[in-house]
Amino acid sequence: MVTTEIRRDPITGRSVVIDRAPFKRRTDFDLEPARLEDAPPACPFCEGRESAAGPEILAWREGGPANAPGWSVRVVANRNPILRIEGGMEVRADGLFETRDGLGAHEVIIETPLHDQPLHTLEPDRLWRVLWAWRTRLQDLKRDSRFAGVVIFKNHGRAAGARLDHSHSQLAAFPIVPAALAEKVRCGSDHYETTGRCIFCDVVAEELADGRRIICNTNPILAFAPFASRVPFETWLMPRDHAPRFEEIADSALELLAAAIRSVLIRTDWALERPAYNLVLHTGPLTGEADQAFHWHLEILPRVTRYSGLEWGSGMHRNPVAPEDAAWMLRDREK
Amino acid sequence: MVTTEIRRDPITGRSVVIDRAPFKRRTDFDLEPARLEDAPPACPFCEGRESAAGPEILAWREGGPANAPGWSVRVVANRNPILRIEGGMEVRADGLFETRDGLGAHEVIIETPLHDQPLHTLEPDRLWRVLWAWRTRLQDLKRDSRFAGVVIFKNHGRAAGARLDHSHSQLAAFPIVPAALAEKVRCGSDHYETTGRCIFCDVVAEELADGRRIICNTNPILAFAPFASRVPFETWLMPRDHAPRFEEIADSALELLAAAIRSVLIRTDWALERPAYNLVLHTGPLTGEADQAFHWHLEILPRVTRYSGLEWGSGMHRNPVAPEDAAWMLRDREK
Repeated sequence: MVTTEIRRDPITGRSVVIDRAPFKRRTDFDLEPARLEDAPPACPFCEGRESAAGPEILAWREGGPANAPGWSVRVVANRNPILRIEGGMEVRADGLFETRDGLGAHEVIIETPLHDQPLHTLEPDRLWRVLWAWRTRLQDLKRDSRFAGVVIFKNHGRAAGARLDHSHSQLAAFPIVPAALAEKVRCGSDHYETTGRCIFCDVVAEELADGRRIICNTNPILAFAPFASRVPFETWLMPRDHAPRFEEIADSALELLAAAIRSVLIRTDWALERPAYNLVLHTGPLTGEADQAFHWHLEILPRVTRYSGLEWGSGMHRNPVAPEDAAWMLRDREK
Repeated sequence: MVTTEIRRDPITGRSVVIDRAPFKRRTDFDLEPARLEDAPPACPFCEGRESAAGPEILAWREGGPANAPGWSVRVVANRNPILRIEGGMEVRADGLFETRDGLGAHEVIIETPLHDQPLHTLEPDRLWRVLWAWRTRLQDLKRDSRFAGVVIFKNHGRAAGARLDHSHSQLAAFPIVPAALAEKVRCGSDHYETTGRCIFCDVVAEELADGRRIICNTNPILAFAPFASRVPFETWLMPRDHAPRFEEIADSALELLAAAIRSVLIRTDWALERPAYNLVLHTGPLTGEADQAFHWHLEILPRVTRYSGLEWGSGMHRNPVAPEDAAWMLRDREK
């Protein structure tokens, strides 16, 4: 009567405990309302309050002046940044303890001018503009040689760490390759050295051959539930063919990616009863040294389970939903 | 006006973003009530309901029969375990995907017979019995050669992943050294190979010399806020002298440890307004191969910030409270 198994993720090497017993939404999940509040008195991200969010770095607008209404996507500096453009690159050591300035960039992508319009409710061409903003900002930031790695992420709902309901994502450019990206680069490079192949390409090939974890396969984009999913209904989206950098994606692929993200989010929203979720986009380190071993991808992580002492203490997640079951529920039946 | 800095933890190598600006409890923290419910209809951990929790593996009782009232600490098998004693050790590979049985042990340490009595409100000799139970179970489980690593952890409060209010901790024995422990063993072994010294001993010496992050120093136990604290008021407790294994701790040191844990938890409870928290105990891998490079320690992790897209995407925590400030607030002024 063994119902749990320990699975190893081939891309990061991490282990996850998957519970194969049928999952119970009411007791296995800790569902918090995603929405933070009914109506905030003054949301800085709403159209008409552009000065509250700060001057725009980038915006999609059909004419009209900057920093005024008329936009559909708007990028501004984070008002409470984890990293700032001022500061030096040097590492200060005090015995064993090393410190460096919080140098980098921390931007906010305001995904819609309307307050109560989550990402998955945007029309495909509107969601496309959000991805366009990510791509444009990445193309710009990679010109700054002080940055080693960029991560784009999104917190939707209180349980995912959101502080505002108004739909937005964030971009952080770091002076080092951050650990979660470095781990994949390291494992990918090991695999490349041993086999001469990209581990992501190999995983795509195995997932396509197996089929049980595929959610959506609209060439060139594949969406699947990773074999060692950390959380229920975790989904990864990536190009089927080798492509280290998201910032080089073509407009046509961006369109299919927008449609796939929307489709996965809509079905996840239904299956998990409006869950909070995090989204993470990993593109290759800006130096380009891992371009043969790394493959851009996007992770969607519903937050219906808590990060508990098990995760802190073991580094292993317990996932009460087998990815094969999650993929079965999220998959497009008509195809 | 750089207020954040990136600090590197010398024991794990991980980087953390510390915000040195004055922290604001009301907006920097997301405080959820720690208590889950007012009065559950039937708590399986309460005295008098021993059969609901299951047969005891270990108990501290002053006479009387097993599995009946009269205990102060009681250890039972987890009814919904992540790992089970049945199963094989072999790894099954399907292409790149490796799976093994969820073989191991998953036990619950019921810390008190009374429902509404959190760990920090127990008298020191009662808290001592909880640590005694941890030590006794570790001594027993290390005899099973199928287990490579054991982690003891505690979830207090909903935000920390607790599902029951009744105070308890958990023990998980794994067939592999779990990642969070393996990371420390790897860094510790690298340091040992380079210097011939234990990294934990070196950190203890530097913390004692510096003093700014010391919370409580009652030889042989040191409590301090780690230099690269991941969460506000993170506290580590460890022996000042080299000791790889918690299960070998002497009764006298266990007494001082109990007093130190109690003191840190009481002050944290006051400073952070009854926060949820996780607690993690790491003892050396059961094989003993890292005994010169590893040093047992206990981590207390208040959960007043959310695990968000930043943490998933970068592997870096953002901590709005400098550990020097946290230590200053938690420190015993009279000493």
